[in-house]
Amino acid sequence: MSARPVAVLAGGVGAARFLRGLVRVVPPEEITVIGNTGDDMWWHGLYIAPDLDTVTYWLAGMADESRGWGIQGDTFTAQAALARLTDRSWFQLGDRDLATHLYRTGRLAAGVPLHRITAELAERLGVRSRILPMSDTRVETRLRTDAGDLHFQEYFVRERWRPAVREIYWTGLDEACPAPGVVDAIEAARLVLIAPSNPSISIEPILRVPGMRELVRAARGKTVAVSPIIGGRAVKGPTVELMRAEGLRPDALGVAERYQELAAGFVLDTADAALAPPIAALGYRIAVRETMLDDLDSAREVAATAVDLLRQPAAA
Amino acid sequence: MSARPVAVLAGGVGAARFLRGLVRVVPPEEITVIGNTGDDMWWHGLYIAPDLDTVTYWLAGMADESRGWGIQGDTFTAQAALARLTDRSWFQLGDRDLATHLYRTGRLAAGVPLHRITAELAERLGVRSRILPMSDTRVETRLRTDAGDLHFQEYFVRERWRPAVREIYWTGLDEACPAPGVVDAIEAARLVLIAPSNPSISIEPILRVPGMRELVRAARGKTVAVSPIIGGRAVKGPTVELMRAEGLRPDALGVAERYQELAAGFVLDTADAALAPPIAALGYRIAVRETMLDDLDSAREVAATAVDLLRQPAAA
Repeated sequence: MSARPVAVLAGGVGAARFLRGLVRVVPPEEITVIGNTGDDMWWHGLYIAPDLDTVTYWLAGMADESRGWGIQGDTFTAQAALARLTDRSWFQLGDRDLATHLYRTGRLAAGVPLHRITAELAERLGVRSRILPMSDTRVETRLRTDAGDLHFQEYFVRERWRPAVREIYWTGLDEACPAPGVVDAIEAARLVLIAPSNPSISIEPILRVPGMRELVRAARGKTVAVSPIIGGRAVKGPTVELMRAEGLRPDALGVAERYQELAAGFVLDTADAALAPPIAALGYRIAVRETMLDDLDSAREVAATAVDLLRQPAAA
Repeated sequence: MSARPVAVLAGGVGAARFLRGLVRVVPPEEITVIGNTGDDMWWHGLYIAPDLDTVTYWLAGMADESRGWGIQGDTFTAQAALARLTDRSWFQLGDRDLATHLYRTGRLAAGVPLHRITAELAERLGVRSRILPMSDTRVETRLRTDAGDLHFQEYFVRERWRPAVREIYWTGLDEACPAPGVVDAIEAARLVLIAPSNPSISIEPILRVPGMRELVRAARGKTVAVSPIIGGRAVKGPTVELMRAEGLRPDALGVAERYQELAAGFVLDTADAALAPPIAALGYRIAVRETMLDDLDSAREVAATAVDLLRQPAAA
């Protein structure tokens, strides 16, 4: 498979909302998505890859966009029956969604690596962009919280991100390496985008895969990040909480500081315009615009801004 | 858990149809079912135990009795979605049925032995009889056929028992032992029943578990078998074909010969009355009656005949 002009580091819903705009600015065939798998987990024997599936479903046009996860119009018959058998059914999977997991788990059991399975699923569901996991081996994002040591999904879904987070850490990094295709995708890309995802638990795991941070750093001159924080708040999820836990400034400037060595362009929201001067002072070319991704038009416009940012002549 | 007065060696649908009569003759709390797990398999990452589930669903009153497998009124949304992803979806599981498998597989992954999980499922689904797998470890029934070496489910479901069978064999026997509770159930029982199941691939795997044949042989005086063959034909499935493959007479006499050292009582159908003398000559006390298990009444009557057979004074 030949390398594609645009590579995107992506988490879950934020990235998916951005990507559905991006595929309307850049031909979908020209895009490689490098997805976070730090949130993956085994659940009742099935291998769950929430971020890969979210991106796949959104790009396939089958996502439940209002809920943010799962498949539009899905039913929850199996889930309801499971809830009668066990109270360990806090992770929700619709019936059609289950099929994705049966397929993936069966293929994993047959020894097929995750990147191949991810490509098969994308292809069968009609996605024309390439979707890669950051790694074929398990890297697990874990949180030390005042409610104990938790898998990210336990913290996020089961505990509804109420526990205070003391530390984020990863297991499996020693054995991990970028999935086949990932290094090529970044090296050969004309443009690398860091999607508006949680920097701490969506983008950071990708960068923690051995070799990845150096790779993205080397691609700094062609990399643009889109802030996931608007007016000091995340659109969805515990971005602010987790950035605080890491000792970062929980705002667009904090995000920009975090990506300083990785990206040359930064898109932030008009609500954060006051932070534009210090962000620009970090060495970024910046774009300030509305970055809410509520609908297709706004997603397309934000994506177009990110795509064009490093192509424009420098401002005076 | 204390031992129960009645133990039943059971396969799938035939046994389940018999058991729903038995629980109306004997209090369900007094019954231990020892179920065949030779047909179990891994399917898309889930652990499937067809015979245990069939017995459980029938005793729970939730079986699809006309189809013979799965849950009444179940939907097949996940299955339909899976069929769009892969043609390896020949084994059918309904959405509610999937929940059973998710529960079981999740518990297995947590290190819980199969007999405990089977008991949990039975209890949560409202079954008052005790259901035990023959073994906690995997014993797999495999067939050498003119279409290759097949798992029983591949032969039965995928190939619709069309290939000619040359040999039946088992893997995993060396490491297998009876599941906890099985030995006690047979030793302490007042009555042991061999359900009208396929002798070759439902009952034989149970007897092949190391120690089981000797155990049932020692219980011969309190054991009654019900013929699964009526008028030279199985009610359902490849019983005749598989008995032939084993070089057995594929009729009620062949079944009686096979169980001769294991049972003292034998129930056969009126259609096979001509075989009654040679069967009695094998040393059995026999009952000849209609043994079709089409409805609850007939199932109850067949069960009552089997339960009473060794209690009655010997015929003149």
